[in-house]
Amino acid sequence: MELIRVIDPHDPRVAAFRDIRERDLVGRQGLFVAEGKVVLNVLLGAPDYELQSVLLLESRVAGLSETLARLPAEIPVHVATAEVMNAIAGFHIHRGILALGRRRGVPTAADLLAALPRRTLALVLVGLSNHDNIGSIFRNAAAFGVDAVFADASCCDPLYRKAIRVSVGGVFRVSFARFDDMGGFVDALAAKGIEPAALSPRGETEIGAFDRPGRLALFLGTEGEGLPETLMARMRTLRIAIAPGFDSLNVAATSAIALHRLADVGR
Amino acid sequence: MELIRVIDPHDPRVAAFRDIRERDLVGRQGLFVAEGKVVLNVLLGAPDYELQSVLLLESRVAGLSETLARLPAEIPVHVATAEVMNAIAGFHIHRGILALGRRRGVPTAADLLAALPRRTLALVLVGLSNHDNIGSIFRNAAAFGVDAVFADASCCDPLYRKAIRVSVGGVFRVSFARFDDMGGFVDALAAKGIEPAALSPRGETEIGAFDRPGRLALFLGTEGEGLPETLMARMRTLRIAIAPGFDSLNVAATSAIALHRLADVGR
Repeated sequence: MELIRVIDPHDPRVAAFRDIRERDLVGRQGLFVAEGKVVLNVLLGAPDYELQSVLLLESRVAGLSETLARLPAEIPVHVATAEVMNAIAGFHIHRGILALGRRRGVPTAADLLAALPRRTLALVLVGLSNHDNIGSIFRNAAAFGVDAVFADASCCDPLYRKAIRVSVGGVFRVSFARFDDMGGFVDALAAKGIEPAALSPRGETEIGAFDRPGRLALFLGTEGEGLPETLMARMRTLRIAIAPGFDSLNVAATSAIALHRLADVGR
Repeated sequence: MELIRVIDPHDPRVAAFRDIRERDLVGRQGLFVAEGKVVLNVLLGAPDYELQSVLLLESRVAGLSETLARLPAEIPVHVATAEVMNAIAGFHIHRGILALGRRRGVPTAADLLAALPRRTLALVLVGLSNHDNIGSIFRNAAAFGVDAVFADASCCDPLYRKAIRVSVGGVFRVSFARFDDMGGFVDALAAKGIEPAALSPRGETEIGAFDRPGRLALFLGTEGEGLPETLMARMRTLRIAIAPGFDSLNVAATSAIALHRLADVGR
């Protein structure tokens, strides 16, 4: 494999890696930047995604030989000093590994619903605008073998750089789709025989007492507002009991507990 | 209550709030800075901590009247415009609420062990150097009523600004102490009849099959290295099964799942 040495931060071959933080804010037309060796390895094994280009710190090349050997021959691998790499990215890249990727296609929620297995566990994210939380939830979803994640229009992008990093590549392992119309989506779940259930501090049923249906979609809402009452009125509601007087669980912690209780992994 | 209007960022009365980020890095001699209304409310109700001073964005004063009414009369409350507040802190303070606090005393691990209730659940943190993880673990510990958290010398400070924020004040609700000598600490647990158990992806017993002893200390290690084998050899080891081929759970997610399984809250 040929390494392309980059010495000019304005080299057009690494333009996609330039000023990453600013680009994070404006969207990238289906492209994303992933960081780190573990995430790159997950990306390489993800059929729904393609790698387009890699930029490495020169001191990382030797330690990455196994990963680099897995790259398709046509993927350009650029190498730079720390000074040049930081000048390209616009900040200090301490992992020394950046990968430019693309999602091969963007399934609709209907596509994903139709492809779910007979026994299934899905997550539905409502209004989650924090990339740490989205990333953590995808990490948990991947860890517990969730079949699909659905996100409403107000959720932030799981393919945002920080969400990818926090997910440790989980965003590439779990199919996900967005939807606009909540009412229509809940109807579509019903049409597929998938029971919706909401996690909420105000939930009626303690999660340990919930008898999991074979086809289940777990709804998670924002920490501040929580799920809208009108939405919760349409489904069973589950709670995780906590000590009195303390604020609440983080939504990602909630997802970890709920998935550990309800997923088939380890059973 | 008198509000002290600050118009000069170099006003000595707010010196403790100056250049917060840089001070984060050098330690604060027992002082800490907490951010936000929820955290301030937890701090006000925490007997082991004392508030020393508050700095508020002027636009937040009206919405904080209930919290401000709880402040002891001698606590100075400073008010500033956004421009002055950001100039004091050295970065944009989007919550608009900063509180300077102090821990009243620093218990030793032996102090804390001696004070544990008959039936008890403690966490022991080993080598956790990430403030997000420390903060999240304290949030979970507070939510599930953990009696004490013990941290080895290589863990980062739970009273670091970001850890406090992520914990949503959980660091003020759960007693904690540090220890230097791991061997001595494990011996001290045994002397108190507290059974140690380690959480690890390589654990022998699936956590759902673990019969919780009345006095239990759960050990959590770093995500990269995990707990040292020599340490795990001294105790039962528990695992949380995840899907094959995926990296691992985050240590804070692990704490959430383990505490939900093993704490008495909700039982």
